[in-house]
Amino acid sequence: MTTDASARKQAPAPLNGVNTPALFATIDVVKNQPQLGAFQFRAAGEWLGGTQSRTTMSDFSGAGGEHSHKATYTANSDHPMVLCGADNAPTPVEYVLHALAACITAGIGNIAAARGITLHSVGSSLEGDIDLRGILGLSNEVRNGFSAVRVSFSVKGDAPDAKLQEIVRQACARSAVFDILTNGVPVSIKTGN
Amino acid sequence: MTTDASARKQAPAPLNGVNTPALFATIDVVKNQPQLGAFQFRAAGEWLGGTQSRTTMSDFSGAGGEHSHKATYTANSDHPMVLCGADNAPTPVEYVLHALAACITAGIGNIAAARGITLHSVGSSLEGDIDLRGILGLSNEVRNGFSAVRVSFSVKGDAPDAKLQEIVRQACARSAVFDILTNGVPVSIKTGN
Repeated sequence: MTTDASARKQAPAPLNGVNTPALFATIDVVKNQPQLGAFQFRAAGEWLGGTQSRTTMSDFSGAGGEHSHKATYTANSDHPMVLCGADNAPTPVEYVLHALAACITAGIGNIAAARGITLHSVGSSLEGDIDLRGILGLSNEVRNGFSAVRVSFSVKGDAPDAKLQEIVRQACARSAVFDILTNGVPVSIKTGN
Repeated sequence: MTTDASARKQAPAPLNGVNTPALFATIDVVKNQPQLGAFQFRAAGEWLGGTQSRTTMSDFSGAGGEHSHKATYTANSDHPMVLCGADNAPTPVEYVLHALAACITAGIGNIAAARGITLHSVGSSLEGDIDLRGILGLSNEVRNGFSAVRVSFSVKGDAPDAKLQEIVRQACARSAVFDILTNGVPVSIKTGN
């Protein structure tokens, strides 16, 4: 979830599958009514046994109202066999990599369209290092999560390399997930029954 | 991805769909050969046009070798229509909530099994607040990502509430994704073409 407000005086035509005029209109609406920018995304998780679970994502609020996705989306997760799971789905940490790739890639599409640059392809390759001595409870000095994440983008489009690289930089600078991962977020946990 | 090393002297029988003896054996192996705890998870993203992308998750390294998931898993992501996307898939930030729910829920399953407690159900409800003035480039004071995430767990099992709540606490204390989100992670971005 990334976009770009620069140069919005001259909204270019739709490009890269992005409805650029609608995007620029949205930016102007939120600029004039900042309270419409307040969104809340939601998810509901359900344990399926072992290390497997399913998450349902169906509704969210924002732009002053309630919204439903056009379908109720689900995502499953599991641990791999080498970690004593059934490997019926990707691991939770792989979904973190997915969220990061998807967020920056959407931003690249939006920003290129806003700048009038036609994209041919955007590929990304992500690696996250994790020492399992953390989550296995074998060390209090080893963190539980990734110690480092590396992302490599390959962008092809009708612009010089420097312009394409600048689009990736701007996409990161306005990426929700890049911000969440690099700066952290307060998480509160409540337990009932 | 969460587990629990406590009380591993007496490995209980498999429970909750968790192969507890295998889990305890894994913990002992990594305890004796810490280098086997070094894992790397990977993902490859591909832009599908507009704000939509697909991520492929197929292989990873760890426990001293290379591994492939038993299937090549994919996840799609998109922006909702109110954000000028096609709403063909969940948003990247909803996948962040999914990853968090899935990680802690897997840990609850593992830890309950390790403690010999039968679970009946684990449900979770997650909310993430985000002010889109950040990603829309309308404010440098509003962050791009979630300002706050709230998670509510409902756990039912053959143990008093206090024991079930302690399992949730321990699952958070050893969750990879909870750590990533609350403490952040260094992310490096490289761009080629």
